[in-house]
Amino acid sequence: MTTPDTVVNVGADLLADAVADQAVPVTRVDWRPPMEGTAADLAVVAADPRRHAANERALAAMLGVTATLVDVLPASEALGLEPGQFLHAGPPIGWDRAPGPLRGALMGGAALEGLVADPEDAAALFESGTGVSLEPCHHRSAVGPMAGVVTPSMWLFVLEDPATGRRSYCSLNEGLGKVLRYGAYSPEVITRLRWMGDVLGPLLQRAVRTVRDSDAGPVDVTGILTQMLQMGDEAHNRNRAGTLMLLRDLSPAMVGAIGSSGVPVADVAEALRFIGANDHFFLNLAMPACKLALDAARGIDGSTMVVAMARNGTDFGIQVAGTGDEWFTGPAQLADGLFLGDYGPEDANPDIGDSAITETAGIGGFAMATAPAIVRFVGGSVPDALATTRRMHEITLGENPRWSVPVLEFQGTPTGIDVTMVCRTGILPQINTGMAGRLAGVGQVGAGLVNPPAEIFPKALARLAELVPGRHTS
Amino acid sequence: MTTPDTVVNVGADLLADAVADQAVPVTRVDWRPPMEGTAADLAVVAADPRRHAANERALAAMLGVTATLVDVLPASEALGLEPGQFLHAGPPIGWDRAPGPLRGALMGGAALEGLVADPEDAAALFESGTGVSLEPCHHRSAVGPMAGVVTPSMWLFVLEDPATGRRSYCSLNEGLGKVLRYGAYSPEVITRLRWMGDVLGPLLQRAVRTVRDSDAGPVDVTGILTQMLQMGDEAHNRNRAGTLMLLRDLSPAMVGAIGSSGVPVADVAEALRFIGANDHFFLNLAMPACKLALDAARGIDGSTMVVAMARNGTDFGIQVAGTGDEWFTGPAQLADGLFLGDYGPEDANPDIGDSAITETAGIGGFAMATAPAIVRFVGGSVPDALATTRRMHEITLGENPRWSVPVLEFQGTPTGIDVTMVCRTGILPQINTGMAGRLAGVGQVGAGLVNPPAEIFPKALARLAELVPGRHTS
Repeated sequence: MTTPDTVVNVGADLLADAVADQAVPVTRVDWRPPMEGTAADLAVVAADPRRHAANERALAAMLGVTATLVDVLPASEALGLEPGQFLHAGPPIGWDRAPGPLRGALMGGAALEGLVADPEDAAALFESGTGVSLEPCHHRSAVGPMAGVVTPSMWLFVLEDPATGRRSYCSLNEGLGKVLRYGAYSPEVITRLRWMGDVLGPLLQRAVRTVRDSDAGPVDVTGILTQMLQMGDEAHNRNRAGTLMLLRDLSPAMVGAIGSSGVPVADVAEALRFIGANDHFFLNLAMPACKLALDAARGIDGSTMVVAMARNGTDFGIQVAGTGDEWFTGPAQLADGLFLGDYGPEDANPDIGDSAITETAGIGGFAMATAPAIVRFVGGSVPDALATTRRMHEITLGENPRWSVPVLEFQGTPTGIDVTMVCRTGILPQINTGMAGRLAGVGQVGAGLVNPPAEIFPKALARLAELVPGRHTS
Repeated sequence: MTTPDTVVNVGADLLADAVADQAVPVTRVDWRPPMEGTAADLAVVAADPRRHAANERALAAMLGVTATLVDVLPASEALGLEPGQFLHAGPPIGWDRAPGPLRGALMGGAALEGLVADPEDAAALFESGTGVSLEPCHHRSAVGPMAGVVTPSMWLFVLEDPATGRRSYCSLNEGLGKVLRYGAYSPEVITRLRWMGDVLGPLLQRAVRTVRDSDAGPVDVTGILTQMLQMGDEAHNRNRAGTLMLLRDLSPAMVGAIGSSGVPVADVAEALRFIGANDHFFLNLAMPACKLALDAARGIDGSTMVVAMARNGTDFGIQVAGTGDEWFTGPAQLADGLFLGDYGPEDANPDIGDSAITETAGIGGFAMATAPAIVRFVGGSVPDALATTRRMHEITLGENPRWSVPVLEFQGTPTGIDVTMVCRTGILPQINTGMAGRLAGVGQVGAGLVNPPAEIFPKALARLAELVPGRHTS
C-alpha cells in the first residue's frame, strides 16, 4: 500500500476522516465557508485597524474581574425597583409577544406583590398595561434564569468587583420543577417565594454580611467557579459542587445568626436543607459573576466580542462590546434534549433565560468537556462533550486561565465569542439549557442543547461594519 | 512510502510506539512475561476448578455491599478497646520495627490517653511493653489512614451494611499538616484531638443518629462515593466533593442539636468550619466503606481476589479471599511524588496506612482517570491518569457499575485485584498516597504515587497453590 506522507485537510471532516482511516497523519484546518452574505462586512471589519487592540482590551477587561458576594438585598432596595415594575430575561419584550412561561412568571410575580389576589387575574392587568412595566434584567445590571422575572420584594444576590466597585445582581434560586422561573404560579410556588422572602433572604443577608466583614472576606464566587470546573460542574446545567462550596462557606455564619440575631434554629436548619437539596442553587451566583465580568467589556469601540446572549422565550438577543446597548435579535430556538416524565418536544417553549451569560463568559456549554456527567442530563455523549469545548475555541478570542479543564490538560475554557469568527466559520455558540413548558403554569419539561439563531451574528456584524470609521461602503 | 496494513504488537510498547509513529494502525495486546518463579504456581491455581466461581462470588459479595453511616462512638464503646490497647495501620508490627511516624502517633496517643504526661516519655513505655499492646486496625474491622493509631477515647465512624448488619470503623479525620496520623504529637496535635473527643465526636453522634432515625435514613456512604467519582474525587487523595456532600447531609441535624440537645451555637459553627476546611474529612468514611465491602469477600476458598492492602510504614501486606487472615508482606516502598515546602525524598517514610483499602476496592489510584486534578497533588500528567485506570483493568476481575468514570464513557472502576493476573502480567496495583516524615513528630512531607513490593503477590500465589485440593506438587 502506498500512501502520501501527510495530508492537510481544509474544511469538511469527511475527507479528513477517510484519510485518517487510511492511517495517514492529517493536519486538520477547520475551514468552512463564511455565513451567507457576510463577505463584504467581514472584509470591512477585518480591515478595521482598531479591532485587534479593542478585542484584546475587551478580553483582558473581562478576565480581570473578580466577583465577590457582598450582600443580599430585596430588589426594591438593590435596584430601586418599584411596585408594578417587573424585570425579565432576554431582550426587551411586551406582554403581547411574551411566551407562556414568561407570562406565567409575570402572573405569579403580580400575585406575590399583591397586585392581584389570584395569578389568573393578572393577565388582564398586563394586557391593559396600567401600572405595570416590563424591562430586561440586563438593563439593570442583573440577570435572571429562565423567565428571569424579578419583582420588588424578591431578594437578590449582590456581587461586586472589588477593583472597581461595580455590581451585578441575581435572584435566589427556587429549586426545580414547579417554580416561577419556569412559568409555574400555583399556590405552592407563591408560598415558597414568600418563605424565601421572609426567611431565606434575610438569613442569607446576615450570613453574607458576616462572612464579608470577617478576616476571610467575602465569598469569592469567581474562585468557586474555578474549583467547580474541576469538579464536574459546567456552571449552567450542573452546579452541584458550587452549591456545596457555597453552603460550606456560609453555613458557619448562618449558624452564628442563631446566637447573634436570634434567628430560630428551625429556620437555619430548613435553609440548609433547602439549599442542600437544590443542586442548581449556585447557578444564580455563577450567572451574575459572568455578567459582572462581561459588563467590564461593554462599550469598547471596535471590539467584536459578544458581551451578552439572552433569551426571552420569543427572541434570542446578543449585545456586542463595540455596539453599545443595541440588541441583535432573532427567533429563539427549540432545544434538543431530554424530557421529564411524559413531556415531549411539543410541550417545550423555545429557549428562554439570561443563563446563556455563562456561555458568553466561556463556561456552561463552552465547558462541556469538564462536565461529562452533564451529557446524561442534556443528552449527547462524552466525546460530544469534549468536541464541543474544542469547537468553541474556534469562535473565541482566548482562554480563561482561571477556568481550566483538567481532562484537556488544564487548557483554559474558550472565552470571548467573536462575532467575526462566528460569521467566518458558521460555528454557532453551544448552549446548555433547561426547557420550560410552553404554556403558562406548567414549569420545567426538560433540559437540552440549543444554539442561537444564526442570523443574529450577521446582523451584529453589519452594524459593526457600519461603525468602522471611514469605511468604504461596498 | 510503503507500510504494512496493520501490526499486532505483543508486549513492550516501544515497538508499538515506533510503528504507530509511522502511522500504522496498531492493535496492542498487553502481554508481558509472568513474574519470575510464578509459572508453576500459576499453572496450579489456573487449574483449580473452584477458582472461577469463587472469584465471581467474591466480586459479587463485595459489589453487593452498601455502606451506611449509622453511628459515631468512642473506640472503647465501639470496639471494646481498653486502656493501653493501641490499634495501628497495616499488618502486625511491634514497637521495635515500627517506623518514625507510627512511633510518633503511638507516643501522642499514649499522652492523649493519659498513660504519660509528655509524649516523649512514651518511648520507654512502648519499649518495655508493660501495659501496652499493638494490634492492626484490620483485625478489629477497622481501618486507619497513615499511622492509623486508634486509642480507646478516640471517636470512630460506624458504618453498617443494612443487608447483613456487618459493621466497619474508622477514626475522624484531623486535617492536614501537623496531625497524629502523620506522626506529629506536639501540644497543638493533642489539643485538637481533645476537642475532637469532647466536642466534634459527640456532636457528630447526635447528628448521625438524628439523620439515621429520620425518614431519609442513614447517610449512604456508598452513594456519596458514586457522586464523588463524578466530581473529580478519586476518594483517596482527593475527597473534596465527598466532604462537602457529608456536610450537606449532616449540617441540618448538627444545627438541630442546638435546639434539641443544648449544644452551644459556637460549637456547631466551629465543627462546620473544621469539617469544611478539611478536604480530606471524607477519606475516613471512604476507607471503612471499602473495608466493609471487601470484608464481605473474605474466607472464600479458591478465590484469588485481594481483600486488603495495608502498610505499617515498614511492611506492606496483603490479604486474599482464599487464604483466610494470613498476611503476605514485603518492604513498604518510598512514594514518588511532590513534597511540601522544603521537604525532599530523604525526609519521607516508606508507604504507610490502611488507606490502600480504597485501591483494593477499585477507587483511589485505580480511579485516577476520574480525578485528573489529582495529578497536580501527587505528580504525573492527565494522560498518565487515564492510562493508570485503563492499566488497572488488566489486573482486576471486574468493574464496579456503581462507581463509574464519566470521561471513560461511564465505564465502571477496575475492581477486585486478582493475584494471578498481577503475577501473570507483572502489573502492580497503583496507589495514591500521602507521605509522612520518616522521623517521629514531623507530620506530612508530601504526596505521591507508590506500588506494593512485587514479591508479595508471588508469596500469596504460592499459598493459594498450596491450598488447591489434590494439587500435584511440581
